[in-house]
Amino acid sequence: MTIQSAIAELSTVLGDGLSRSKSDLDLHGASETYFAPTPPDAVVYPETTEQVQAIARICSAHGCPVIPWGTGTSLEGHALAIRGGVTVDFSRMNKVLAINAEDMDCVVQPGVTREALNAELRASGLFFPIDPGANAALGGMVGTRASGTTAVRYGTMRENVLGLEVVLADGRVIRTGTRARKSSSGYDLTALFVGSEGTLGLMTELTLRLHGQPEAISAAVCAFPSVGAAVDSVIATIQMGIPMARIELLDAATATAFNSYAGGDFPALPHLMLEFHGSDTSVAEDAKRFGEVAEEFGGTEFRWSERTEDRNRLWKMRHDAAYAVKAIRPGADILVTDICVPISQLARAIGETEADIAASPLQGPILGHVGDGNFHALLLVEPGNTAELAAAKAISERMVERALKLGGTATGEHGIGIGKLDFMAREHGDAWAVMGDLKRALDPGNIMNPGKLVKVN
Amino acid sequence: MTIQSAIAELSTVLGDGLSRSKSDLDLHGASETYFAPTPPDAVVYPETTEQVQAIARICSAHGCPVIPWGTGTSLEGHALAIRGGVTVDFSRMNKVLAINAEDMDCVVQPGVTREALNAELRASGLFFPIDPGANAALGGMVGTRASGTTAVRYGTMRENVLGLEVVLADGRVIRTGTRARKSSSGYDLTALFVGSEGTLGLMTELTLRLHGQPEAISAAVCAFPSVGAAVDSVIATIQMGIPMARIELLDAATATAFNSYAGGDFPALPHLMLEFHGSDTSVAEDAKRFGEVAEEFGGTEFRWSERTEDRNRLWKMRHDAAYAVKAIRPGADILVTDICVPISQLARAIGETEADIAASPLQGPILGHVGDGNFHALLLVEPGNTAELAAAKAISERMVERALKLGGTATGEHGIGIGKLDFMAREHGDAWAVMGDLKRALDPGNIMNPGKLVKVN
Repeated sequence: MTIQSAIAELSTVLGDGLSRSKSDLDLHGASETYFAPTPPDAVVYPETTEQVQAIARICSAHGCPVIPWGTGTSLEGHALAIRGGVTVDFSRMNKVLAINAEDMDCVVQPGVTREALNAELRASGLFFPIDPGANAALGGMVGTRASGTTAVRYGTMRENVLGLEVVLADGRVIRTGTRARKSSSGYDLTALFVGSEGTLGLMTELTLRLHGQPEAISAAVCAFPSVGAAVDSVIATIQMGIPMARIELLDAATATAFNSYAGGDFPALPHLMLEFHGSDTSVAEDAKRFGEVAEEFGGTEFRWSERTEDRNRLWKMRHDAAYAVKAIRPGADILVTDICVPISQLARAIGETEADIAASPLQGPILGHVGDGNFHALLLVEPGNTAELAAAKAISERMVERALKLGGTATGEHGIGIGKLDFMAREHGDAWAVMGDLKRALDPGNIMNPGKLVKVN
Repeated sequence: MTIQSAIAELSTVLGDGLSRSKSDLDLHGASETYFAPTPPDAVVYPETTEQVQAIARICSAHGCPVIPWGTGTSLEGHALAIRGGVTVDFSRMNKVLAINAEDMDCVVQPGVTREALNAELRASGLFFPIDPGANAALGGMVGTRASGTTAVRYGTMRENVLGLEVVLADGRVIRTGTRARKSSSGYDLTALFVGSEGTLGLMTELTLRLHGQPEAISAAVCAFPSVGAAVDSVIATIQMGIPMARIELLDAATATAFNSYAGGDFPALPHLMLEFHGSDTSVAEDAKRFGEVAEEFGGTEFRWSERTEDRNRLWKMRHDAAYAVKAIRPGADILVTDICVPISQLARAIGETEADIAASPLQGPILGHVGDGNFHALLLVEPGNTAELAAAKAISERMVERALKLGGTATGEHGIGIGKLDFMAREHGDAWAVMGDLKRALDPGNIMNPGKLVKVN
């Protein structure tokens, strides 16, 4: 019962769907952030649910860790093989199996990326709105309960997964949920697997909600005298029921970074970037009403645009934020923090974080999905500089403690992986032990992405 | 280790918060539908989380069943004491603990009813939108994952519970979720408890999302030549992104029942009843656009109203539907069916159900939350007539099989309880066994509402 014996048996089942080449192992041992490389012992590329089932059975029998892999864009080390074992790369399970236009849903394999899905949907009048920035695989987005800029309107993966096919550790294949829009039939297993980071099973099929492509889209930018004023205008906007598709906060440092990197012309002030989806009439009305709210809270330099090219330029800038921030200090790594608080506490959380960063040796521009109370400080760290990494981790830890004190959470959208494991007991108390109970119930051998999210004795 | 010894110990802890009076036992042994009365051995009325914790510990130690009770309005026998034991009536835990207006959330005890919450919210500009018809306790609504007429816009309880305080079978008190709008921090325990029907623990505190009271509300009614035409116009409306707050289907039999019971003047045709929430401009535009869609699909007798009294009259009629249907056959009981299918299959599911009812000796008008694909046939049964009850159950069973065949679910919003337990294996296959695994992990003694939702060996 060893990893090596599991790999020997797997190679008879998977043939050239199993790789032990150094380049494959290295690729699957890397992450996008500061974690040390930890390659697996082998990489498998299943093409069918039956192959995934065989992988689960064989790895269970041999006690071999199984780590799912989408595109490797997660930020908390979710896909690192920290105990060795086999990485299951889903890139060959990348088919869109069904698009049900009338029902506004689709069925996809986990290796389909969100951009690939939206390309297939273009002619249907529908789209999948969740946008975490990276062109992640949808299976990975389910695994981390991803969200991003559009969650304020369309929800997160939690609200957009209708059902799953999952291979359990013992090789059983289950289906959770149906294509019905709602159900009161038993425990919500779909929600249990969304955000489970590969620790409870391997997803082989996803049924996702789709949304109608908006008839009209408009965008707006507005500067504010302070983060507090920007947040207050967001609170008022939400309470008035003005439906925003996106509402993003940039602090002054980010606005300045956009100016130098992407030729923006923002004043060195906090900004809100907004998008409205609807009919021609409604987006015009929404922008007008938002403009009035913003003015009340001292907003200036309000710019509104219906032109597609202006809008695309704006959101490209937002999507490239990490590059713009990196350009402040060429060659630096970024440690991306990710807390989420009740919106009434957001200005305070950001203000205290800014003060914390100012008192540190680091630079760390801040961006936020402000409609959800979620923000990130992008802490710039010199590669290999352990003092700077320690300073960045200390800032991140204080952000988490601040979030918990203010009624929030350690991670709004990036997940736990190994990066935030130490905060789980603090955030959840005995509820973390309950997560361990559930993990043991479904994966008694602890082979499914072991060492992530839960601790199992 | 008996129920009686549990009750003896409970009475020392709860004093006059424990009742064995016949009237109390009878009240808590009754249900709103066709199930035989099954009173508990005692009823307890806790006032604090600590008392609920004591109840769990004592009942665990004695192996005594614990059945949570809100207002007793569930329709599938969820709160019946089918194995005896202690019913936990939460009516004394009925405080609104906090209203956080800026964050649009609130914290309530489980015994608060939805109408009581909305009365407290009136001055805040906020409201809690989920409306299952009955003035249910919010704890019960969490337990059954309730929804109702507004789910098409505001979601179900699944989307509107941010967090819970739960007392587990072993007496541990856990908190799930936070007041943040979203989180990627670990398993979604909140979603696991929403819809768990009291089988995993007792909820003692609920954190709920609130929504802004709409600035303007308008309503519309429209007749259609067929159920199919009505459903097609709903599909088109959703795809165009016209935001409806409610969209309800009545079949011709229900329209006729409304005429005789409530003085309606509907033609004997299927109808849609709609409500739009937004600004003055947007609700007018939404109604206009819907009117155009309806016309395309043969809609006639389109009536639109912004007047509050007309709107209230309309929705009162809808809320009193059960009474209107009962008036068709005075003295009859109603067996309420509840399936949910992908909307593309809804016209077919309703058509086949209508044919099924027509071929039976029963009458059964149909109403549906058509935006979600969810509908109910209200089957009229003579009390004590076992042949009629069997016919009604057979219709319900065929509806469920139809729903499953069409990609849907056995229950859109009423839950499993004991009434739909026999359909669980058919709907979920091995996933039902997984639900049993989770139940055993959290309630190894099977004291939490035993015999409901799962089967545990």
